[in-house]
Formats: sequence, C-alpha cells, structure tokens
Amino acid sequence: MIARIDHIGIAIQNINDALKFFEDALGMKLDHIASEEGGRTKVAFMPVGSSDVELVEPQDAESGLGKFLAKRGEGVHHICFEVDDINAALARLKEHGAQLIDETPRTNASGMQYAFIHPKSAHGVLIELYQRPNGK
Amino acid sequence: MIARIDHIGIAIQNINDALKFFEDALGMKLDHIASEEGGRTKVAFMPVGSSDVELVEPQDAESGLGKFLAKRGEGVHHICFEVDDINAALARLKEHGAQLIDETPRTNASGMQYAFIHPKSAHGVLIELYQRPNGK
Repeated sequence: MIARIDHIGIAIQNINDALKFFEDALGMKLDHIASEEGGRTKVAFMPVGSSDVELVEPQDAESGLGKFLAKRGEGVHHICFEVDDINAALARLKEHGAQLIDETPRTNASGMQYAFIHPKSAHGVLIELYQRPNGK
Repeated sequence: MIARIDHIGIAIQNINDALKFFEDALGMKLDHIASEEGGRTKVAFMPVGSSDVELVEPQDAESGLGKFLAKRGEGVHHICFEVDDINAALARLKEHGAQLIDETPRTNASGMQYAFIHPKSAHGVLIELYQRPNGK
C-alpha cells in the first residue's frame, strides 16, 4: 500500500544558508529550486536515491509552515509517502479512526493528488500521502 | 556521495501501540522487531521501497532517545543516509566546520559503520550516516 518514501520535507529559515550544509558539507546535489503553493513556499529539491530531500522555506509567516518554524525551529517538517490508491488509503485511515487534515485528496497544478494526516494520529509525525497522476 | 535514505527513525512511547497506526491504519508492513544498542532500544523495522521506517522505543529513560522523547514527545528522531565512503563524508563535513557527534565511525555487531552529525550543524535534523560492510 505504501510504495516508497517520496520525500522528506525539512523546514529551514533560508535555503541559500541551508544549502551550505546540505550541498557543500554533506554532499547532496541540488536539482532545482521552485516556488510552490502559489508563492507561499520556496522549495529546494535534492534527489537521494529514489526519494527527495526537500528544503522548505516559508515565504509567509502566517502559513502552517511559517508557524511551525516560529514554534519548533528548523528540523524535519513532514514525511511524504507514495501510495498506489490515495482514496483507498484515506478510507482505511478513517476506518481506523485516524484524524486527517484532508478528508479528500487535494490536486496540485500537475495533477498530483495528495493529502495530509494529522500528527496527533501519527505519533507526532506530519505525514503526506501522494498518488502519481495516471500513467506517470 | 549520499546514495540513499536508509531509514527514518521515529521516536515512539510504545511499539505495539504505534503499530496500530503505522501497520493497521496506514498499511505499512512490519518486518521484525529487534533489541538494539545492548537492550537500550527496541526497534520495529518496516520496509518502504528501498528504505525502512523504524519505530524506536527507548528501554532506558536516561538514554539520548529516552531524553529526546521526554523533552520533545513522539515524532521523527533521526534520518539515516547511506554513503559510499563514511570516512570521506566525515572528512568533508569537518572541512566545512560541521559539528559531529562521532568524529570517527562507530562499528556495530554486524560490521556496519555509522556516525551521527549534530543537529546544531544540520538545521535541526539529527543525521546518521552509514556505510555498508565491504562487499554487502
């Protein structure tokens, strides 16, 4: 049901500063930097095997990510797993009484469906589920 | 240099309780549960693609993991990356001024070399590096 770790999202204050560690010192490779969520987040994508490490920098202090950073400081923000069938996964979670942030999947600009599970149900981990667009 | 996410370690209070979420509700598959670090930690291994999710339950409240759990609560504890050459990776980190928990690699019972980077240098993330034993 869970196919793969798609990415680990790390909340950081400033991408250029964080790349000095993750790229220069640790030896990860930056693929690209993109503006996401209508400009509310800037993301640096670093492929690692069949997954990505994503450095996520809030552009809006009032966003969920901005508030997380102010409260908890830098660190792991969320883990995203690829699932084969996101609707089946959400139905199974609901059957077991899990608290969902998204009861139904959201769809982004590239047709990718995704949904978040509340960390209260997931032992303190903010979990994102994601399903590839059909045929990709 | 970084080959793969080897595992994500999630600090939890009780493995059997956490499996109700990760296995029953989320649909992960438990491979096995093992006693690690000379009995100081109990670990549930759940393979996900080419990585593992590991639920780590402290058996000693005075261990690093036990203190983390008491202070921060349940959640992501560390991220482990597989590297080709752990000594080269640690040398590069030192050159760039990164603070290491282990200046030289530790070796576990199965000959695996590993070392931790201090989260102060790694933007709040406790990072473990690991190198496979030769020829495995």
